[in-house]
Amino acid sequence: MNYKQAILVRSDLKLPKGKMAAQASHAAVESALRAEKDLMVAWRGEGMGKIVVKVADEKELYKYVQEAKDIGISTAVITDAGHTVVEPGTVTCAGIGPDTVEKIDRVIGKLKLV
Amino acid sequence: MNYKQAILVRSDLKLPKGKMAAQASHAAVESALRAEKDLMVAWRGEGMGKIVVKVADEKELYKYVQEAKDIGISTAVITDAGHTVVEPGTVTCAGIGPDTVEKIDRVIGKLKLV
Repeated sequence: MNYKQAILVRSDLKLPKGKMAAQASHAAVESALRAEKDLMVAWRGEGMGKIVVKVADEKELYKYVQEAKDIGISTAVITDAGHTVVEPGTVTCAGIGPDTVEKIDRVIGKLKLV
Repeated sequence: MNYKQAILVRSDLKLPKGKMAAQASHAAVESALRAEKDLMVAWRGEGMGKIVVKVADEKELYKYVQEAKDIGISTAVITDAGHTVVEPGTVTCAGIGPDTVEKIDRVIGKLKLV
């Protein structure tokens, strides 16, 4: 696998399964659409490698998003419309990439899987 | 909201949170990329409305996917590469749409949220 995408999920929100899946999906789609076309096509062709990892809170989420931006990786921070589980406007997760495995791991290599 | 996407997740597999989020994300991206450009753009502009619902098993998943196909909704059935949680090649979930809320609900309106 040469390309992958990472989804960062806030663990402090303790999102229920379905909510997490929906929010992660938002992040995946938006970050993929923001990636350079060539990267996206290559990643899609390979089977869209993806990992879902946890960050402690909003502050940590933004820290990793900034690190990704700094090296030119596409990002998408997702806020929930919030009618049910969390307050409206709550940042729930972020998509990072797709980009090369090397670049993605440089940013999120130390984070633990959800 | 005029457009939405649905993610169907097999409840019989009892996927762990992180796995479900990753598989749902695959489904969301692939089905969105397969949708007509106009639908995708309209849906994205609206904030990518999305629901994650459960189906009993693989057979039921394919039944709803076929119903979606029959009325011209984009679909994507996702199989897991399967190194950890499930057997390789296991169908885990499916993306349906984005399309109009009316069409999506016509197919999956009776399914329960995850």
